[in-house]
Amino acid sequence: MIERYTRPALAQLWSDTRRYETWLTVELAACQAMEEAAIVPAGTAAEVRAKAEGKLDAQRILEHEKRTRHDVIAFLTHVEELVGPSARWLHWGMTSSDVLDAAFALLLREAADNVLAGVDQLRAALASKADEHRETLMIGRSHGMHAEPMVAGLAFAGFYAEVGRARQALVAARDEVSVGKIAGAVGTYANLSPAIESRALGLVGLRPETVATQIVARDRHAGFFAALARLGTAVERIAMTVRHWQRTEVGEAREAFGAGQKGSSAMPHKKNPILSENLCGLARLLRAYAGAAFEDVALWHERDISHSSVERVIGPDATGMADFMVRRAAELVLGLVVDPEQMRMNFARSGGLYFSEGVMLALVRTGLSRQKAYEMVQKHALAVAGEAAEAGAPSFRARLGSDPEIAARLSPDDLDLAFDLRHHLRWSKTIIDRALGDLHT
Amino acid sequence: MIERYTRPALAQLWSDTRRYETWLTVELAACQAMEEAAIVPAGTAAEVRAKAEGKLDAQRILEHEKRTRHDVIAFLTHVEELVGPSARWLHWGMTSSDVLDAAFALLLREAADNVLAGVDQLRAALASKADEHRETLMIGRSHGMHAEPMVAGLAFAGFYAEVGRARQALVAARDEVSVGKIAGAVGTYANLSPAIESRALGLVGLRPETVATQIVARDRHAGFFAALARLGTAVERIAMTVRHWQRTEVGEAREAFGAGQKGSSAMPHKKNPILSENLCGLARLLRAYAGAAFEDVALWHERDISHSSVERVIGPDATGMADFMVRRAAELVLGLVVDPEQMRMNFARSGGLYFSEGVMLALVRTGLSRQKAYEMVQKHALAVAGEAAEAGAPSFRARLGSDPEIAARLSPDDLDLAFDLRHHLRWSKTIIDRALGDLHT
Amino acid sequence: MIERYTRPALAQLWSDTRRYETWLTVELAACQAMEEAAIVPAGTAAEVRAKAEGKLDAQRILEHEKRTRHDVIAFLTHVEELVGPSARWLHWGMTSSDVLDAAFALLLREAADNVLAGVDQLRAALASKADEHRETLMIGRSHGMHAEPMVAGLAFAGFYAEVGRARQALVAARDEVSVGKIAGAVGTYANLSPAIESRALGLVGLRPETVATQIVARDRHAGFFAALARLGTAVERIAMTVRHWQRTEVGEAREAFGAGQKGSSAMPHKKNPILSENLCGLARLLRAYAGAAFEDVALWHERDISHSSVERVIGPDATGMADFMVRRAAELVLGLVVDPEQMRMNFARSGGLYFSEGVMLALVRTGLSRQKAYEMVQKHALAVAGEAAEAGAPSFRARLGSDPEIAARLSPDDLDLAFDLRHHLRWSKTIIDRALGDLHT
Amino acid sequence: MIERYTRPALAQLWSDTRRYETWLTVELAACQAMEEAAIVPAGTAAEVRAKAEGKLDAQRILEHEKRTRHDVIAFLTHVEELVGPSARWLHWGMTSSDVLDAAFALLLREAADNVLAGVDQLRAALASKADEHRETLMIGRSHGMHAEPMVAGLAFAGFYAEVGRARQALVAARDEVSVGKIAGAVGTYANLSPAIESRALGLVGLRPETVATQIVARDRHAGFFAALARLGTAVERIAMTVRHWQRTEVGEAREAFGAGQKGSSAMPHKKNPILSENLCGLARLLRAYAGAAFEDVALWHERDISHSSVERVIGPDATGMADFMVRRAAELVLGLVVDPEQMRMNFARSGGLYFSEGVMLALVRTGLSRQKAYEMVQKHALAVAGEAAEAGAPSFRARLGSDPEIAARLSPDDLDLAFDLRHHLRWSKTIIDRALGDLHT
Repeated sequence: MIERYTRPALAQLWSDTRRYETWLTVELAACQAMEEAAIVPAGTAAEVRAKAEGKLDAQRILEHEKRTRHDVIAFLTHVEELVGPSARWLHWGMTSSDVLDAAFALLLREAADNVLAGVDQLRAALASKADEHRETLMIGRSHGMHAEPMVAGLAFAGFYAEVGRARQALVAARDEVSVGKIAGAVGTYANLSPAIESRALGLVGLRPETVATQIVARDRHAGFFAALARLGTAVERIAMTVRHWQRTEVGEAREAFGAGQKGSSAMPHKKNPILSENLCGLARLLRAYAGAAFEDVALWHERDISHSSVERVIGPDATGMADFMVRRAAELVLGLVVDPEQMRMNFARSGGLYFSEGVMLALVRTGLSRQKAYEMVQKHALAVAGEAAEAGAPSFRARLGSDPEIAARLSPDDLDLAFDLRHHLRWSKTIIDRALGDLHT
Repeated sequence: MIERYTRPALAQLWSDTRRYETWLTVELAACQAMEEAAIVPAGTAAEVRAKAEGKLDAQRILEHEKRTRHDVIAFLTHVEELVGPSARWLHWGMTSSDVLDAAFALLLREAADNVLAGVDQLRAALASKADEHRETLMIGRSHGMHAEPMVAGLAFAGFYAEVGRARQALVAARDEVSVGKIAGAVGTYANLSPAIESRALGLVGLRPETVATQIVARDRHAGFFAALARLGTAVERIAMTVRHWQRTEVGEAREAFGAGQKGSSAMPHKKNPILSENLCGLARLLRAYAGAAFEDVALWHERDISHSSVERVIGPDATGMADFMVRRAAELVLGLVVDPEQMRMNFARSGGLYFSEGVMLALVRTGLSRQKAYEMVQKHALAVAGEAAEAGAPSFRARLGSDPEIAARLSPDDLDLAFDLRHHLRWSKTIIDRALGDLHT
Repeated sequence: MIERYTRPALAQLWSDTRRYETWLTVELAACQAMEEAAIVPAGTAAEVRAKAEGKLDAQRILEHEKRTRHDVIAFLTHVEELVGPSARWLHWGMTSSDVLDAAFALLLREAADNVLAGVDQLRAALASKADEHRETLMIGRSHGMHAEPMVAGLAFAGFYAEVGRARQALVAARDEVSVGKIAGAVGTYANLSPAIESRALGLVGLRPETVATQIVARDRHAGFFAALARLGTAVERIAMTVRHWQRTEVGEAREAFGAGQKGSSAMPHKKNPILSENLCGLARLLRAYAGAAFEDVALWHERDISHSSVERVIGPDATGMADFMVRRAAELVLGLVVDPEQMRMNFARSGGLYFSEGVMLALVRTGLSRQKAYEMVQKHALAVAGEAAEAGAPSFRARLGSDPEIAARLSPDDLDLAFDLRHHLRWSKTIIDRALGDLHT
Repeated sequence: MIERYTRPALAQLWSDTRRYETWLTVELAACQAMEEAAIVPAGTAAEVRAKAEGKLDAQRILEHEKRTRHDVIAFLTHVEELVGPSARWLHWGMTSSDVLDAAFALLLREAADNVLAGVDQLRAALASKADEHRETLMIGRSHGMHAEPMVAGLAFAGFYAEVGRARQALVAARDEVSVGKIAGAVGTYANLSPAIESRALGLVGLRPETVATQIVARDRHAGFFAALARLGTAVERIAMTVRHWQRTEVGEAREAFGAGQKGSSAMPHKKNPILSENLCGLARLLRAYAGAAFEDVALWHERDISHSSVERVIGPDATGMADFMVRRAAELVLGLVVDPEQMRMNFARSGGLYFSEGVMLALVRTGLSRQKAYEMVQKHALAVAGEAAEAGAPSFRARLGSDPEIAARLSPDDLDLAFDLRHHLRWSKTIIDRALGDLHT
């Protein structure tokens, strides 16, 4: 985790101290379940809680680990220091992964909750922009080229829907990793039972793994990191679009530029879409982390520990970045300075070429084949595009009107109809409403 | 797609001819919806169907494409050749992606159905092995080292559950890509309407995209290919395990070896787990394809076409391979020659060391601290392991029994209890039943 | 390999027939080396060559493989059919991988030669454009925003240099995979010798692996596919830039548009940068293939065969695509319609803001601190940018000139000097010459 | 960077303080070059060095950055605080990337030097094991199955050669990133010159970029991180092999196990290859980082800054991990407890089946076809393998000797020759010598 791209809440969540505390939470839940099953003396959990909770010394545990080269044994040794003889009842019949995997599930779940809260901020920002720009005329672009008219709100509504799908995928993935196992060495409950596991995990809000090996199955985690990667691509598409909108020649929207902010050490005139560029880079990292997670699934026999080093890195890094990204994206969208006037000016540059489809369809309606009509219109459209820079060149509408073949088929009124912008945009509100319909769900 | 790793059904599904036929299916559905909306003359769809369905000439379309450099226009030109004037009503108000994306959805969905049918074969095979080996004793291994006892059926049950989760993810992903758009150039229904789109897509069993750009959003497809990658990892874990079981020193299971089969061109004595190795390689490819799909999401503005070349390759290749893999895996599992006797022999090699946990817990119960008990047992365990090769060395049980410190705390009966295999395995049946519980859902 | 993205030469190179012929080439080289070492009767290679070369029946070999489930044994069986008893001397002391890996090296090398020839076409195209546009004024852009002046030739020179580095990496990678082994089952020369291997490989232009296992080490191949991925990124950067140049608002260059070509099935006015978009997609696939190749390195013990399925796919696909990409990129660059007039117009839009650095430095020279000078210039630059759309707003030069604080420090002549475009561009020719200096190496 | 997987040297190298110091180094080199070119007053560099070197306050710079949102401007502001008016001559005509990229090059180069020193430790460890086990008999395995005899030294020699190739690739990659640019905003030397750049970079041991944009080309960095990924796979193959060797049933080598070390919290008998498993996981991360680096190459126009967030993470993380991995691998290899006796016992289990090739070749020499000979030998080999567990079953040698068809062709002396282990291993020393030949280069 690098400070620059991590909120303090996530940094704290993945701290050593917090990890050890979460291990204790799991041990206490298991201990209580075993008390209830009369395997461990009554009162043990209460005693351990009283003596150890909030008192764990991360540094001391790390020192124990240097000797034992085993993190959970180091932890238990430290708890024993704090608690005394009763500590021997902790971890009864359990293996390290019983603690580690349940704790990892709890931390991932909490991290996901943070990310999801940020996702909701982002969705709210997108919805508000979609709403605000329901009627803001903008040229739609495919292949980077002017295509047909749209409203700016549609772009935000599309982002909103996509982030919504990413949210849904993350909610499902969060659920998939909310699983633990308290089933001992190779998942057989040799010194435990399914009932104890179910009770212990229930106490911390987790479900038991269907068939555990020594660990919870890692396909669950691969799915989780893939969901984060997907969320990253949704943010990336927003950021990529802002970068396009802001580029000098387009200028349709730009990132907020703070008082005192400087765009370039060399060029005082620069204002750059740096937040968006930053988000595009972070999305690449989320993809990369997912790739590593997929390689963690096919472990040897009842487990090997090769997934552990990967997870120590990507657990904090991927969730920390995702959390950072959605919040930065939310700010970016909220602060975005949209320039409807510039949109209108860009729109006007195409000289009505975007009505070429309507004219073609009108011609087809008169009985021409589609290909013939296409070619009749394409001839004028390409000519107009070629003359764009020349002052006084006839407009697309004018060229069409003065083509005798076309005039013979389409009256000026027919052409007016084909050039009617309101007709083009009559469904935009419907689409935006459809997209935002799930806003309060 | 390479023939070697593709079933004919999938090869046919992704053929040029089949693609063009699917485009026609979409055009016809849209045409019919527009007839119903009185935009297109009644009878058009029927006429086009009669004249073009089953008569498309893929070669001729490819020739048209050479000139127009546009595949859908080439297709429409060919349909016009077959149908005559009425063809001009086809593709009314539509853009190419309206056809392409709905058709891609139909093909992906059908491909997914093929994969899912194979997944069910694999699950059936795994269930039958899980059932068959409910009581087949096997040593559980962590880190490749003998850990504690289990039954072989647990391994198969674990695979069954994991493949089941991958199945569920693929079903969800299949649903997510079962989406089209018939909304024109930049998704605004400029010359169409949401009602027409809804009807047209409904005719072929698809849903409309919430907010389309020129295309259906590509996060859906990234999710789909990620689901295939995940399925690949589930198969990989099975295959990896078979490879471990088959290795000479383990020998607990082996792939079926056909009459006439030869294992090596140099070494007549070889029988190798080649199917499993093959599956491990293919899983890497599925991961790679998912990586490319994630890069396809953040397209420019209302679409750029960079995703298209990627999808032309990974659409067929990833689904074709996944389909092949699950079926090969099903055969592999069904034909697997499990050797319970060899499992028993391997089990015996550890000389009861796997009971070390039980002894430690018994000592803790007498009041020792966990760490103290651990060290008392570890001393004998490591000694036994070190002497493994020496004939006449005392057994683990014997060493423990003759340690006065231990004898002072544990009677021979206590030790017997700790060395009781039935106790260890008492829950295996429960776990397997729990895993197979969803078999008929 | 899909036909659409594969030249016939590469399709042929990776055909079944060609593969079997290459196996025969390797067997014959080994056979001749063993004749010379008097292990195999004199004349064997000549006899086999006469009876089998050019006569292999790929279909028949595939049938044998169905039974033996071993491709090389199937091949040898077929050769025996053609050659008779003398065929028994073929493959003496060899294992399948001796044949497979040397043949794979020969095919990869030839594929690389094809790619490299295409790379040279691309470099020639880039050099010619760099040369042509040595003085074509263009605004340099960072973050998509106008930055400072440059000439268009610099962009092409930069691509030229980058493709040159990718070429160098591919040449090195080609050399790294030009390695075989004729060393038998686990690379020990049990029934062979280093001298025979060296002679046999020398006959086909390969070097022996330093320490073979059963196979040539796969880190070599990972390096090779990473070099192709890198070449892909170089092409991607060219293609990405063309897409930016062509976008409607920029319009500084565009892909050639063929007679008869159609840009959109809906919109007759469209001309899209589809070749460039296509290349961006293919670059993603090359990255993906490299990812799979890296997973092939850490095989088990003296080899497992999991790399084989990966290589059957990515060997043809990655080289075929790379070959296609560099040639398509060469055509793209050659045919690119550069529009210097539009470049000039875009340049003019910034109203001299790109001179802001020069003014700041001139102010610093008068004794101001950098930060102070920066802020003095930034104030006017941001104001000018904000007024861009307003007719009659004072120019950047005018605003600076009428700022009393600035006027007190910089004379009109000083300002003229800071606004001197020739000064800005005086080194461009030098840089381009430096880049093209290696043109004929 | 996580402490657990980072040496202090690398943590320090990538600290904020060290980064700012390196920026100052670059600014000073540029300043000195400009003094020599009489652009900046003589003595400036000396004054800045005296007042700022060793006195930078990272915290203060980060505070400035909060306001300016620009890291280099924040740095320059701080230097101005320390130095006073003369600081205005710093950064003359430069853009931030002139500083950032040269500094990144210096840090990457130093990081690479650290990694390479660790690589040499690893190579020394591997060479010593290769040397030590020149005659240690071991069964060679393909597909995890016993194949033919070899010596353990060959495995180490193979690792040595592979790590050597990875080293060579990293040395080349280090050279490729040892490049900077001092060329101003878009690389045109608008207020600088190639001579100044060349001198400035020469002072810190870097070369100028051939054609810079605003930044050094990122294909160089992609190559660098791909080289680290490749090094990771070389370590992964070693680690993977150790894991196989250590597994209970094989037991041919094992990681050193420290006094006080504990293998499992549940099972006191466990000693696990955890270092090797850890290394396998880290190799996945190095692959992932390379994937992100490849996505950084195709930036927009003369640069966008999306690569920056990626590099802030993978610069430290990938080099830090690679440095950690090679050193951990070196320790692992040095401490590896090889068990020749266990190797011998495993070897013996195959009952001479590995001589099957020699017998087949001997039969071919008598005039049989290869396929016929293969089948004659395969019959007995498979029978022996099938009977492996049965006491008193005839040996492979015995079965062959008593087969009348074979006996008619091969005398007992012929069979002895085919079963001669020394013959098998006669080249091992040669191969090892060949591999270690470059030890002192």
